[in-house]
Amino acid sequence: MSATALTIPLWADLLAVTIGSLQGALFASQFRERRVDLLGVAIIGTATGLGGGILRDVLLGEVPRALGTNWYLAVAVLAALLGMLLQRLFNRLAGFITVLDALTIGLFGAIGSTKALAMGLPAIPAVFVGVISAVGGSVLRDLLMNLTIAMMHVGSLYAVAAGAGTAVLVTMVLIGVPTIAAAVTGTIVTVVIRLLAVRFG
Amino acid sequence: MSATALTIPLWADLLAVTIGSLQGALFASQFRERRVDLLGVAIIGTATGLGGGILRDVLLGEVPRALGTNWYLAVAVLAALLGMLLQRLFNRLAGFITVLDALTIGLFGAIGSTKALAMGLPAIPAVFVGVISAVGGSVLRDLLMNLTIAMMHVGSLYAVAAGAGTAVLVTMVLIGVPTIAAAVTGTIVTVVIRLLAVRFG
Amino acid sequence: MSATALTIPLWADLLAVTIGSLQGALFASQFRERRVDLLGVAIIGTATGLGGGILRDVLLGEVPRALGTNWYLAVAVLAALLGMLLQRLFNRLAGFITVLDALTIGLFGAIGSTKALAMGLPAIPAVFVGVISAVGGSVLRDLLMNLTIAMMHVGSLYAVAAGAGTAVLVTMVLIGVPTIAAAVTGTIVTVVIRLLAVRFG
Repeated sequence: MSATALTIPLWADLLAVTIGSLQGALFASQFRERRVDLLGVAIIGTATGLGGGILRDVLLGEVPRALGTNWYLAVAVLAALLGMLLQRLFNRLAGFITVLDALTIGLFGAIGSTKALAMGLPAIPAVFVGVISAVGGSVLRDLLMNLTIAMMHVGSLYAVAAGAGTAVLVTMVLIGVPTIAAAVTGTIVTVVIRLLAVRFG
Repeated sequence: MSATALTIPLWADLLAVTIGSLQGALFASQFRERRVDLLGVAIIGTATGLGGGILRDVLLGEVPRALGTNWYLAVAVLAALLGMLLQRLFNRLAGFITVLDALTIGLFGAIGSTKALAMGLPAIPAVFVGVISAVGGSVLRDLLMNLTIAMMHVGSLYAVAAGAGTAVLVTMVLIGVPTIAAAVTGTIVTVVIRLLAVRFG
Repeated sequence: MSATALTIPLWADLLAVTIGSLQGALFASQFRERRVDLLGVAIIGTATGLGGGILRDVLLGEVPRALGTNWYLAVAVLAALLGMLLQRLFNRLAGFITVLDALTIGLFGAIGSTKALAMGLPAIPAVFVGVISAVGGSVLRDLLMNLTIAMMHVGSLYAVAAGAGTAVLVTMVLIGVPTIAAAVTGTIVTVVIRLLAVRFG
């Protein structure tokens, strides 16, 4: 299986964390006054960015990659703070949050499922790990904010988009497509489904 | 300690997962319209069936058994879907849900505590791991649905039933009773206490 | 790095667990009638006392220390039961709960961050593990009680106190201060900030 050799570059992982934290902080900012204050926004942003990857590594029996270097936490906290500032500047940019959100689930889904395949997991568990990586951050976000969990609603297509994208990725890897091509395709499938859901849903 | 040699057969574990997922989906179906849609019911069913075993293995420092083969996830998702269909056909069968529920906590408690003993854990932690395995799925279900957690109420006897059954099991194993006999006894104790709680509670 | 040789004595760890469980049970008792019954109080107390340490060890890739001996669970359950009794005797001692709470986060923060350093984690992840150890019990408590999570509010200074104390500890260790001196200083910093927050907040 060609996935065995895959190494996720640090910058790709940090990019997904940055977008996740930014999106989490922007999301939480909408609930200021009512549910969370500034510190809460920073914590939720950081948790959204790091949650999926930490859950993924705990499930795979590894010390979370985010704890192996100073980069992940530093980047996640800075991105969350940036999200708080961006919220003040652009507080009508709901579309921007949506695109970031779609990109986060696409990237985390691809990273999680390729990592699971590389560790020798079978196809269905690899898709599962990809979905958990993709939606873990937002589920943690909703749990910490005591909100209904967005992932579970058909209309949001969160889980459906992540599941479809990672299933395409895993299938492609299993039939011999190079991992990088499979990962790009899987990410695009997830992003497109999620954006179509928001556009027409 | 005779537990050292115990291997839980795949079919027994899959049976517990099936019943857990079925029960979780039937439970969640009662809240349709208000809290969850069809996708949510499927996700909650799957989480209820797999949650206890995954928590158990993460606590024991292992990659969850549910990720080692395609069977667990496939069975859990199918059972959750079946639960959704059953709900339409038999929507007054509250008693059936209760029996399934009691059987799930009994089976998971027995599997979890024997696995903990087999890994060399002392008696009290083995009971604890059994209880977490037994109630983990339903706690996860309640967290995802933003409901009050049923496990914590005396009236429900959830935790009490699981604790009593696994304590009996662990005590029997420690005094030399064969693991399979202890496991059957422990399961029966849990199921009986839980059913008495519902009948007279 | 001098932290490498650090071993946390069992009694220190059990002291933190005792105080955590006591505090969790006292806290939960305030919500009797409304959210939790007696069993719930016992479960929440135990979860508050053990939650931070279990999360810490899961993140560090180890079987939780609380599962390696009968002591932790026995002590946590007894402390939670004691907390329930104390609540009846001294139900106006809100100040006592606050001091216990501050001491718990101080001790768990110091234990968690020194353990992370001893395992070779870099500075920022070590602070993160300390904070998770410190606030993990109370976050779990709030999740199980379906309450807004106290840790996230600036006014409570929970996370701020834990973060500041563990950051001081980690910095001191990195510049060569003996671990025990750093741990005592870090604990004091956390306790003082948290108590000042309550006094003047």
